[in-house]
Parts: sequence; structure tokens; C-alpha cells
Amino acid sequence: MCELLGMSANVPTDIRFSFRGLAVRGGQVGPHRDGFGIVFYHGKGIQEFRDVDASCHSPVARLVEDLPIRSKAVVAHVRQANAGAVNLENTHPFHRELHGRHFTFAHNGQLPGVKKLPLGRFKPVGTTDSEHAFCYLLGQLDGTKAPSMARIRKIFGQVAAQLSELGVCNLVLSDGRAIYCWRTTKLVSITRRAPFGAARLQDADMTVDFAQVTTPNDVVSVVATDPLTDNEEWAPLPERKVCVLVDGEWK
Amino acid sequence: MCELLGMSANVPTDIRFSFRGLAVRGGQVGPHRDGFGIVFYHGKGIQEFRDVDASCHSPVARLVEDLPIRSKAVVAHVRQANAGAVNLENTHPFHRELHGRHFTFAHNGQLPGVKKLPLGRFKPVGTTDSEHAFCYLLGQLDGTKAPSMARIRKIFGQVAAQLSELGVCNLVLSDGRAIYCWRTTKLVSITRRAPFGAARLQDADMTVDFAQVTTPNDVVSVVATDPLTDNEEWAPLPERKVCVLVDGEWK
Repeated sequence: MCELLGMSANVPTDIRFSFRGLAVRGGQVGPHRDGFGIVFYHGKGIQEFRDVDASCHSPVARLVEDLPIRSKAVVAHVRQANAGAVNLENTHPFHRELHGRHFTFAHNGQLPGVKKLPLGRFKPVGTTDSEHAFCYLLGQLDGTKAPSMARIRKIFGQVAAQLSELGVCNLVLSDGRAIYCWRTTKLVSITRRAPFGAARLQDADMTVDFAQVTTPNDVVSVVATDPLTDNEEWAPLPERKVCVLVDGEWK
Repeated sequence: MCELLGMSANVPTDIRFSFRGLAVRGGQVGPHRDGFGIVFYHGKGIQEFRDVDASCHSPVARLVEDLPIRSKAVVAHVRQANAGAVNLENTHPFHRELHGRHFTFAHNGQLPGVKKLPLGRFKPVGTTDSEHAFCYLLGQLDGTKAPSMARIRKIFGQVAAQLSELGVCNLVLSDGRAIYCWRTTKLVSITRRAPFGAARLQDADMTVDFAQVTTPNDVVSVVATDPLTDNEEWAPLPERKVCVLVDGEWK
């Protein structure tokens, strides 16, 4: 199994606190020692960092924790390999360009039989069931023109429902404009807005007072496999229902 | 204009010395302050680092200089924007998946009129002439099955010749197995093999004795816009001819 992290905000936001909470689960307090990846959107562009080392040890993860990168949409993942070898091509998030936008995808779970699903023009580079599922999704999204957000929501829901018949299927997808989520077993979220308070990581000795680092209009939502903090209320996402974040708000 | 760097080796090789030589040209001794990117192949997987900051200042570039990443195929670029705004989606190298392989592309020059060339399924995310040229190339490479190395060489040559009618067109392309190069104005190379000697960067106070960091069977070739060292002989690539590196050797 793996752990997912997604963030959506209405202003470019520093995700290092949440990433730290995720990264310690990559081989330190959690078993997810088989690589990690994080994709930051900056407009239509993406900046990515990934490594096959456990995120708790990786110097690339340390850089991510040190850099004050601000973004409105982020997808991250720490991996515990079950399907597919431990190598870079099997690390999530996966991304592909579709009609001039980078789509980014991360999956938690196992999808036995997914490789029977037919692919269109997008082909896996690695051997995971997750990347095959992503390529299948993109094949369904593909068409003669760029898909609208309404179409992405609809197709994502149809494909996610189909995948969920195969096994555990918790998903985070982004095209930079929105974060699309789907839960079968584990995916929780929190939305932070004024009045902001202090948050304390569950698995690392780190506290941030968000009141000190935000403005009153900021809205930031985080989704994760398990709650990252132990003094806030995280809510499970509804089961088998597409949930979409735009600018930090559920749409 | 921009500066290109490509490396091919028969063993996973540390490229930090050459990258340092390139990075100082990104805003320190050179004018290429509009971002940089570097893609390392590890088998079929890629690890990339990019930033819109000048490479001489970017903390991401510092990380790349600090990390002993070893790879058999690398493509890097420092940018001085002429076509397209300074943002992440316009930083080279660009990459796309084609039939289950990541293709990586960097360009030095300007290609006025390139946007009239018709695109297939690959679409630019940014606004540069370079990314349009890459998407056009991939459209020509596309087909019902994965292109062989012979086909990549042939199509790359045809497209590069076509692009060279438009303007300055120095190119580095890789799919991880080979580095494909094309020069109209500036692209030089060096092949290092036993007996290895010391090399001194032209633009930074740094010397490496390759005899200390190699084995007798290592073969490493580097291509760059301008010579990176001042005590070695760099040879210009032949003009308007596809040159292909595999495992450090010209094929």
C-alpha cells in the first residue's frame, strides 16, 4: 500500500508541513520505503521531484522540505511496492500531457486484472497496475479536443467506479486547475481557512501556526490517506463519489 | 539563445562536473538566467529537476550539484528566453511518453514559422517554438508500434533538416537508450576514455581528475553548446547530420 497527498489552495501555498508529515511515513514511522514523488503545479507548468529512496532518507525529499515552493495544486505519494519493481518508472505520481495540459495521477491500493483494460494512445513506461489504470483513464478522456472540467469529472467518476470493482482504489488526479479525488477505503481531508490555528503533525515533532503564515482570505484543502495532524478534525471523503477541489474549495 | 548539455556513458556516470560548467552559464558568466532543467535516465525511468530561477542561483540546481546521481543518459538545458515567457512550462528539456518510453528534447536556437507545422496527438503545454518543434517531431515518430532506433534516427534527421530551414536548430533528443544530436551552428563534443586525465572547467574554478573516479573500461561522451573545459579538445559535431551516442560511443 501507499500513501497519497493532495493539496488545493486559492493562493500559492507552501506544502512543506504536510509533505513532512507524509515523508516521515516513507520508511520511518511507516513502511512506505520504495520511493516517493511530488508534483507542484505553477500555472500550466509542473515542477517534480522523485526518488527511489525512502522519503525519510532521500536527499531529494530533504530539498523539498527545505524549499519554500508555493503552489495552488500539488499531488504527492510515498510508495510501498506491491505491484511492480522498485524503480523510478514505477514511482507515483505519474503524469502525461493531454491536449496541452499535464495530468498527474497517484493511486493507493491494488487493482488485480486492471491490465486487461484496453489502452489508447497512452502507454505505461513501468509495470504497476496504477500506471496502467492512469493510461486507461487518459484513453477514456482522450478525444478531438481538450476535455472540459465537467467532462473530466464525469469520465474520472466512471473510470474510478470501474476500477473500484477490481480492488482498493483511492485516487488523486490533477490537471493543475482542480484536484479530483476518489475513495474506496482511505482518503481524508481538511479545509483550513480563517480563523487559522496551530496544527501539529501526528508523526513528527513539528507544529505550525497557520495564523502566522496566511492571510485572512486564504483557503487551503489537503487530502491524505490518513490524517497528518493530531489536533485537527480530518473528515473521510464520501465513498465512491468524485470529490473535486478548486482553489481550496469543494466544488 | 540557450545552452545544451547531453551525456551518454557505458556505465552510470556522475555528471555533476559538466552540469556545474553549464550551470554557471545560467546567469553568472552567461546570460541564460531564465530557468534550467535536467533529466536523468535510470533505465526507462526518469528523474528530473527544473526551475525558473537562473541555474547559478537556483537551490534546485545546487541540489543537482550536490547529489551523486549516476546515469547513462542525461539531457540538460539552461535558458535565455527569446520565444515564450519565463515560466516552468517553457523550460527545457521537454518530455513526453511515446509507446511506453519517455522522450526528452532540448533545443538551442530560434525557429520562426515552426508553429505552422501541423501537430498530431502531442500538444505543447507552453508557448515556445522549441516545444512545438518537439511535438511535431513526436507526431512524425508516432505510429502503431514503438519506433525502432533506426526509425528514430531517420525521422529525427528528416525533421531536424526541415526545422533547420526555419532557423538556428541545435538539438539533443533522448529516449534513454541513445542521445540523438543535430547541429546547425553550435554543438561540440568530447569522448573520455582510458587513459583518463584531469579536466578543468572553463567558467568555474573546478578540476576533476577522471582517473580517480572511473574504471579503465568507462566511456563517457558529453555534448554541449560550447566547450565546458579549457584543457581538453572538444570537436564540433558535423553540420546538419544526425549523430547518435549509445553507451558513450558514436554509432
